[in-house]
Amino acid sequence: MLILMHKDATRRQIEAVCSHVKQSGLSPHEIPGSIRMAIGITGNQGALSPEQFAHLDGVAECVPVSKPYKLVSREVKPESTVVDIRGVKVGDGSLSVIAGPCSVESRDQVFRTAEAVVNSGVQLFRGGAFKPRTSPYSFQGLKQEGLRLLEEVRRQFDLRIVTEVKDAATLDEVAEVADVVQIGARNMQNFTLLENAGRLRMPVLLKRGMSATLKELFMAAEYLLSLGNFQVILCERGIRTFETMTRNTFDLSAVVLIKRHTHLPVIADPSHGVGIDWAVPPMARAAVVAGADGVMVEVHPEPAKALSDGQQSLTFDTYAKLATELNELAAWRTAHR
Amino acid sequence: MLILMHKDATRRQIEAVCSHVKQSGLSPHEIPGSIRMAIGITGNQGALSPEQFAHLDGVAECVPVSKPYKLVSREVKPESTVVDIRGVKVGDGSLSVIAGPCSVESRDQVFRTAEAVVNSGVQLFRGGAFKPRTSPYSFQGLKQEGLRLLEEVRRQFDLRIVTEVKDAATLDEVAEVADVVQIGARNMQNFTLLENAGRLRMPVLLKRGMSATLKELFMAAEYLLSLGNFQVILCERGIRTFETMTRNTFDLSAVVLIKRHTHLPVIADPSHGVGIDWAVPPMARAAVVAGADGVMVEVHPEPAKALSDGQQSLTFDTYAKLATELNELAAWRTAHR
Amino acid sequence: MLILMHKDATRRQIEAVCSHVKQSGLSPHEIPGSIRMAIGITGNQGALSPEQFAHLDGVAECVPVSKPYKLVSREVKPESTVVDIRGVKVGDGSLSVIAGPCSVESRDQVFRTAEAVVNSGVQLFRGGAFKPRTSPYSFQGLKQEGLRLLEEVRRQFDLRIVTEVKDAATLDEVAEVADVVQIGARNMQNFTLLENAGRLRMPVLLKRGMSATLKELFMAAEYLLSLGNFQVILCERGIRTFETMTRNTFDLSAVVLIKRHTHLPVIADPSHGVGIDWAVPPMARAAVVAGADGVMVEVHPEPAKALSDGQQSLTFDTYAKLATELNELAAWRTAHR
Amino acid sequence: MLILMHKDATRRQIEAVCSHVKQSGLSPHEIPGSIRMAIGITGNQGALSPEQFAHLDGVAECVPVSKPYKLVSREVKPESTVVDIRGVKVGDGSLSVIAGPCSVESRDQVFRTAEAVVNSGVQLFRGGAFKPRTSPYSFQGLKQEGLRLLEEVRRQFDLRIVTEVKDAATLDEVAEVADVVQIGARNMQNFTLLENAGRLRMPVLLKRGMSATLKELFMAAEYLLSLGNFQVILCERGIRTFETMTRNTFDLSAVVLIKRHTHLPVIADPSHGVGIDWAVPPMARAAVVAGADGVMVEVHPEPAKALSDGQQSLTFDTYAKLATELNELAAWRTAHR
Repeated sequence: MLILMHKDATRRQIEAVCSHVKQSGLSPHEIPGSIRMAIGITGNQGALSPEQFAHLDGVAECVPVSKPYKLVSREVKPESTVVDIRGVKVGDGSLSVIAGPCSVESRDQVFRTAEAVVNSGVQLFRGGAFKPRTSPYSFQGLKQEGLRLLEEVRRQFDLRIVTEVKDAATLDEVAEVADVVQIGARNMQNFTLLENAGRLRMPVLLKRGMSATLKELFMAAEYLLSLGNFQVILCERGIRTFETMTRNTFDLSAVVLIKRHTHLPVIADPSHGVGIDWAVPPMARAAVVAGADGVMVEVHPEPAKALSDGQQSLTFDTYAKLATELNELAAWRTAHR
Repeated sequence: MLILMHKDATRRQIEAVCSHVKQSGLSPHEIPGSIRMAIGITGNQGALSPEQFAHLDGVAECVPVSKPYKLVSREVKPESTVVDIRGVKVGDGSLSVIAGPCSVESRDQVFRTAEAVVNSGVQLFRGGAFKPRTSPYSFQGLKQEGLRLLEEVRRQFDLRIVTEVKDAATLDEVAEVADVVQIGARNMQNFTLLENAGRLRMPVLLKRGMSATLKELFMAAEYLLSLGNFQVILCERGIRTFETMTRNTFDLSAVVLIKRHTHLPVIADPSHGVGIDWAVPPMARAAVVAGADGVMVEVHPEPAKALSDGQQSLTFDTYAKLATELNELAAWRTAHR
Repeated sequence: MLILMHKDATRRQIEAVCSHVKQSGLSPHEIPGSIRMAIGITGNQGALSPEQFAHLDGVAECVPVSKPYKLVSREVKPESTVVDIRGVKVGDGSLSVIAGPCSVESRDQVFRTAEAVVNSGVQLFRGGAFKPRTSPYSFQGLKQEGLRLLEEVRRQFDLRIVTEVKDAATLDEVAEVADVVQIGARNMQNFTLLENAGRLRMPVLLKRGMSATLKELFMAAEYLLSLGNFQVILCERGIRTFETMTRNTFDLSAVVLIKRHTHLPVIADPSHGVGIDWAVPPMARAAVVAGADGVMVEVHPEPAKALSDGQQSLTFDTYAKLATELNELAAWRTAHR
Repeated sequence: MLILMHKDATRRQIEAVCSHVKQSGLSPHEIPGSIRMAIGITGNQGALSPEQFAHLDGVAECVPVSKPYKLVSREVKPESTVVDIRGVKVGDGSLSVIAGPCSVESRDQVFRTAEAVVNSGVQLFRGGAFKPRTSPYSFQGLKQEGLRLLEEVRRQFDLRIVTEVKDAATLDEVAEVADVVQIGARNMQNFTLLENAGRLRMPVLLKRGMSATLKELFMAAEYLLSLGNFQVILCERGIRTFETMTRNTFDLSAVVLIKRHTHLPVIADPSHGVGIDWAVPPMARAAVVAGADGVMVEVHPEPAKALSDGQQSLTFDTYAKLATELNELAAWRTAHR
């Protein structure tokens, strides 16, 4: 923490701040500047809160200088975390594709899609049974019936299931079917859900909130790790900006920053990131060469009839072509490591 | 819903779209334009989803023309809703001030603040027992102990208690102590919590999410009303923008738009909206003359020692002066209705 | 400037940074922390650029601690600047209303509006002759013809004219007619225009850019003051956010922060800030009690027929009622200083 | 244009609107809905302004349905525009790399960089002589001296020069040296500069404003095309969002949308887009496989000593490696067309 004093702060005010710092068991360091005094604080474990000092007389501003996250930080754990999903590794340098429909809608829909996914050589299947929806009048998922269908898919196709948990109350039943429990963007700061998911001992896919800074995403992941769940995969899925031609603004640079600042694997979700079917393949390709550990895409037998996210879902044909391209780019990437 | 066809859409494509509309039990209306054909759809109850039509051949864009919210809309219920909090009315044209500390920290802190609040003539007391925090390492509230202190305050000072619920699991215990259950910004789209709060039959204060559009806020309230809880108060508490000199950007125009588009009362929270103590009084005054039904402010005996939100909490002196000013402006407002 | 070293920075790297600091004629101060070393820099006049140090080995981050603006800062000049517009003072604690049409459209339109403005007791008249427009196909203003009409208004009604300058090439002719030269939001970082306006010796109204931080607004004003023009008025006119129900998000807290951090007068422009006629009066009232030195509103004889900004222009009746209210609130404000 | 009437609009109000539409020489089409009447308007050339109808009695909302841009639209001109820069083609499916320093700082710096650029096989050289800067106290470029150095580079290395024009006054001298005149983000809505550049008959690189929507970017380009300059290249360089860990948020999806909606070539500028040197290569690679016609990167002999943008400039080594990678990915892209 660095405390910046007002230009006109008196000697007495400066000393009072230093004395307050000492009383907190920390060490103050005066740094005289051309227009103001700054006071550096040392001796703290972890980050200090500006609130402790901002109200003292003569204080102009408090600038935090330590990062507030620890366990997720690559400074603390330099080697990359590899998450093992029943033998499928995410974060080991290979490319993990996760594909499937937005929502589980029917046995026919989910089985046809699973077949298309398996045929493309992909082992991770996404599909929502519980759907958080902006409107109370929208389709909210097949719920338990959806979980049963996912379980069937899991057994029949030997796919790993990535599915969203909507709340703490249904976490256990979701965790029973899922190989990866997904926490959606709107729940990124649902701390109760994070606490419950932190007590699981299985992979969690944590999506960035739609207006979450990367620091907030890291802190949300810190909830999971601090409770002992280290099998965490982060996911960039677009942020909210002023632009309205896309559903969200897909912040691909987040992938690069997540890899640099944390040791956790990161997945890109261009389907939600852009929200337009024809824009998904170029952004998925981009994610691979930018270094994403995986890409998640929505696929549907008939996007025009999807009960949710039809506008951003790929047909089987488009998906198959994309899967091939992504593999080629992943091979290129491996060759250039 | 208005469907805009591509400039080069063929006659056959236009007819296929019209036929698709008819199969959905709706009526298509061709509107030939100078550069493209538009197709208006009528016959629907409530809003249609663009997804049903966006993928048909020749369709360029689908423009929704009905509003997706119903029960909260002033078009549907023109008279303003008045929420009754054990005899204290919010939304009847008077000004409701809600004051108290961010968090309940100790018996002494909460009682001293309650006394200051009562002395200012205010009847609604805020204070958090469960605190959602960005960092797992920050103070998370006194929890059950905090609720007990709020209950004491409620009895001893005859104050109405506004306190936040963090999750569905603790809703019942919070609802027992609270006169108004507050749903915080990070939970605005916690749909499970909304569903549970919608089944309550007591007042709920719903804060706008930090990057929620007003339409999304209205849809979140629609969850509550559609489950039968009509005692809903909305709250503007600042939105996330690129500006970093303030904690959030306090969107005061939201107050005006909420009053126009819905029949629900609206409270302004300048403490979170701006996040700087000296900026709270001017913004609180502004909220009154802009038409807010109430103002919520954070007050603390010693802001410098607050365990949360110290930077934006008012001292008792500043608060007392502000309370007087707000009453004067409320009187001015009443005289000009 | 505070330089934060990497957790694993070597002693040699730290010393190399300190030595680099000394070579720049500045003084380094080592501040050992629990997880990393920080190096405070003193001895600089004005702000340093992080670029000078960010690339040295072992440096994790550079945190600027001095403010980059000087002449506009209230720290440097504590007393408020009062701008004198041919005898009309802005910034002296009184309220200055600026009213008039968005664009000068015709002799009839501008004269009828000027009469309504004068009748409300207002002395500052706005009206655009040169209109920057997003589309090349939109009405771009009457240009020189518009200036002539403004000159007539100025003489006939003894109004002070506030009118926008679109570029450096037309600055002289605009400055001849104007009492206040307005630099619009899209030109806030048109540095050539700022440099030319900085050489004027007459009042300039500088609008905040639609995505400008307050620091950037202050730096733009610094261009004007650093060239010797101290007659600068700042203007908040709404910023761009994700919200689409309003034209912009009117950041009223900017008024409070501008008054605190600079000595310059500040005007609120709720017409552009919100962009909806019925939302202008409440936001204008709010601006007064939040401490704005003035309020600028668009008025038009027939808003439905306006060539620009009709949706946010007030009728004469609404305007007259608003002007009275604003005066009452200004009187209240004076009584409470 | 689609006019939505209020739920309770009277028959008389509906007829008045229709009659107003007819008086404007257009045709109204009533579309009765379940809760309200809509009125479609046909017969217009180009887009209508909502302002003409929004104020009529009973009107709830006006929804524009035509796009406001014409000449830039791929609907109007389906084949892609290829810009010819003295024999170097941009937009023909190949990849154009533009490299060079942010600012021209000295003869040595610019010649060493030009040599590195030529050695990588790149033909387009960037470098700023006139630098728009947020602070009046920052380095503003070598100006005319900078232009002379660029001219030398152009002759000696046979490079095509891309350099920024800061204002209309210096456009001619810049255009004399430049092969491509660059209009920077802060000038995207400097309409006077656009008008002057529209009268040039040489390539213009138009950067997206830092908070410009894609529609606004298209309208800015429309200024250029409507004045007869069709040699326009668009450039995505990051937009302003709430995220502070990157300089801007690089909106790569813009590349995809620009290619789809316009016929103009598009360049990605990851240096400004992200603003961190180590994040530039992954984002540059991403831009290629997302379909950008070119990539612009900042290179400097000694980034730590750069007078501007040092933090985002690549060293020669990093640049050389990146150039090779980009060529490989461009070849991959060509093979998959």
